[in-house]
Amino acid sequence: MIKVIAKLTIKEDRVEEFKTFVPGLVEETRKEEGCLSYQLFQDLKNKKVLTFIEDWESMEALQRHMKSKHFQEAMPKIAELQEKEMELSVSNLVI
Amino acid sequence: MIKVIAKLTIKEDRVEEFKTFVPGLVEETRKEEGCLSYQLFQDLKNKKVLTFIEDWESMEALQRHMKSKHFQEAMPKIAELQEKEMELSVSNLVI
Repeated sequence: MIKVIAKLTIKEDRVEEFKTFVPGLVEETRKEEGCLSYQLFQDLKNKKVLTFIEDWESMEALQRHMKSKHFQEAMPKIAELQEKEMELSVSNLVI
Repeated sequence: MIKVIAKLTIKEDRVEEFKTFVPGLVEETRKEEGCLSYQLFQDLKNKKVLTFIEDWESMEALQRHMKSKHFQEAMPKIAELQEKEMELSVSNLVI
């Protein structure tokens, strides 16, 4: 199992727009083969910090996701809404 | 439900020591009331990056955890092993 932690910092005045835009991406991603879990969290104090936490069956499934139409289409939109570069960690379970 | 994402960057030559030390903390934490999940992940490319992903029933349960003996004892050890300050996000689910 692969755990993806993707921490986004969104421009303060675009956070609501981001939250309106994201359900379409989430819905499509959850339908993908090998997607075990795909959730978005928002920091309670710093509302600009939004983190996707994702569980993928395998690296192959994750790579397929990154080539998918909905992901490819979402990327430029997310880039536009971001205040700074996303912090991405592709990890596996220690304990 | 409260999601905690605690991203640690450990000194390169202390990563194995960290991984040896951490199971005691994890075991004690999982016994706590209100701890729904407490897991540690390691970045596949950058082995120094280790992230706790934690689910807590409530903010009260999280605050109790941070006052617990095992947490208070672990903090100085983690501080010693860290290359830089931990990035902590206390979040809730958007979608």
